[in-house]
Amino acid sequence: MSTRILILGTGLIGASVGLALKAQAPGSRVLGWDADPAELAKALELGAIDEALPNSNAVLIPGIADIYLLATPVLPILDWMQKLAPVLNEQQLVTDVGSTKLEISELAAKLYNQADCAKFLPGHPMAGKESGGAALADAELFRGATWLFTPPDQNESVLEQEPSALESQWRALVAGMGAQIRNLDAEHHDEVCAWVSHLPQMLSTALAALLQDTFSADPDGLAAVQAIGGRALRETTRLGSSPYSMWRDVALTNTEPIAQTLHALEQRLAHLRENLRTPELRDEFTTANRFRAKHDGSVS
Amino acid sequence: MSTRILILGTGLIGASVGLALKAQAPGSRVLGWDADPAELAKALELGAIDEALPNSNAVLIPGIADIYLLATPVLPILDWMQKLAPVLNEQQLVTDVGSTKLEISELAAKLYNQADCAKFLPGHPMAGKESGGAALADAELFRGATWLFTPPDQNESVLEQEPSALESQWRALVAGMGAQIRNLDAEHHDEVCAWVSHLPQMLSTALAALLQDTFSADPDGLAAVQAIGGRALRETTRLGSSPYSMWRDVALTNTEPIAQTLHALEQRLAHLRENLRTPELRDEFTTANRFRAKHDGSVS
Repeated sequence: MSTRILILGTGLIGASVGLALKAQAPGSRVLGWDADPAELAKALELGAIDEALPNSNAVLIPGIADIYLLATPVLPILDWMQKLAPVLNEQQLVTDVGSTKLEISELAAKLYNQADCAKFLPGHPMAGKESGGAALADAELFRGATWLFTPPDQNESVLEQEPSALESQWRALVAGMGAQIRNLDAEHHDEVCAWVSHLPQMLSTALAALLQDTFSADPDGLAAVQAIGGRALRETTRLGSSPYSMWRDVALTNTEPIAQTLHALEQRLAHLRENLRTPELRDEFTTANRFRAKHDGSVS
Repeated sequence: MSTRILILGTGLIGASVGLALKAQAPGSRVLGWDADPAELAKALELGAIDEALPNSNAVLIPGIADIYLLATPVLPILDWMQKLAPVLNEQQLVTDVGSTKLEISELAAKLYNQADCAKFLPGHPMAGKESGGAALADAELFRGATWLFTPPDQNESVLEQEPSALESQWRALVAGMGAQIRNLDAEHHDEVCAWVSHLPQMLSTALAALLQDTFSADPDGLAAVQAIGGRALRETTRLGSSPYSMWRDVALTNTEPIAQTLHALEQRLAHLRENLRTPELRDEFTTANRFRAKHDGSVS
């Protein structure tokens, strides 16, 4: 019997996963549900899901799926983990795509991965677009991207050392989407993601908001800024389009690491500002060049 | 007789201008010189210039060209303005592509645009790549980009109110490269460019340098950061590849406006950091969304 996958949250990421699943395994059965009926209808229309569940109660019907993919922002993921745990059993797997992993992993250790409980595999694809929604879904979104998993610490895992058959199957499906799988510890995940994802987001939001406040009093000034700004401005403010609805949960569940990276950047900018006319500026450019040289060589 | 154009500095911008000129006016005569013989040879090889001047003395031969394009960093532009003024006459035009315009415009008012002096039209194409060099030259680099001019203030212009024939010709050539021409005041130029160009550059440099210092002690950590980082990281650190050689002159000739924008961003980041768990974060995202909505609509 083919594996049934239920995607909770059929926005950009959930619907893209659905499209990628159907592309590699046309015979798979993909169910979907979303709190927003329009998003759910769009996912169905695009063929990202085979069937739309009529309401949130249907999600909780025991045995309705083998693999549950939680593809909402982080706080609703934590809610769904609470609601699903009592109705699932050890033959089922729950996984997610949440941007932060420590709180999710801690809750998973309490409610999952124990005798008579469903398995939970925390996951996080490093892919997205600055705007959300099923309408932008793309079966190729994950090709070449890293898909992180933060499986339970082997030392603390009481019962199950080996990945279950469903976990192995899910990892194979993710690899089949073209993603590069990497395992790491949940706490380390949140620290690294604060640097490489959350800091760039907050920076881009702050820059775009600052420019808006600085120039919007004069419509001509704002128009000039936007006409004059080239690729540099577009790229550094692009993430300013990102929705608060998703990033609120990231900020709430990874506050301290994000605050630390922001504080470090504030100090770095102040240092650069104080050295605009000294040889220290050369050091700063040389160090940045070095980061990019490695970066260009590895992933650009 | 066809207009002879001499490009001083045949790096990325100078050689791209040469290619764009030859593409639209194959019969034009383009001379070139660069302090780096390799850059000059590359520009000649690519067909960006018709003839390479043998040395810097040849640049100063009276009457060797009709239009002089200064396409070096800002400090050498100021040097060339000093050297060229005594050997040119009112039948010749000098223009430039320097990233800052106030110092250049002030020097132009002293040495050019007067009786028996050559004309000077300060210019600044808002285009480029994060790495320099003639090898990356592109005839299409300016298509769709804004090309700013900061002509002398009409109120202070003693002798010449109308653009000279050569100035009109140069503006037509720039338009022929596909650029959108916009005139503004030199001081305003430097303030606006601090916001839309210099701030994004310094920000990207600081972020890339901070990541390099944070993760390079552990080669595995740096590799993980670069493997995990997606498009968000690539785009926000891309300008970290930019060369100090060009940006030193920008920092030296626009220090105060850049320092002010950096200071404003530091404060904005601190505000965001202090409000990661408050509704203020929503306001910041909403304001940023508004900037991008207009931005997307106008130039993206």
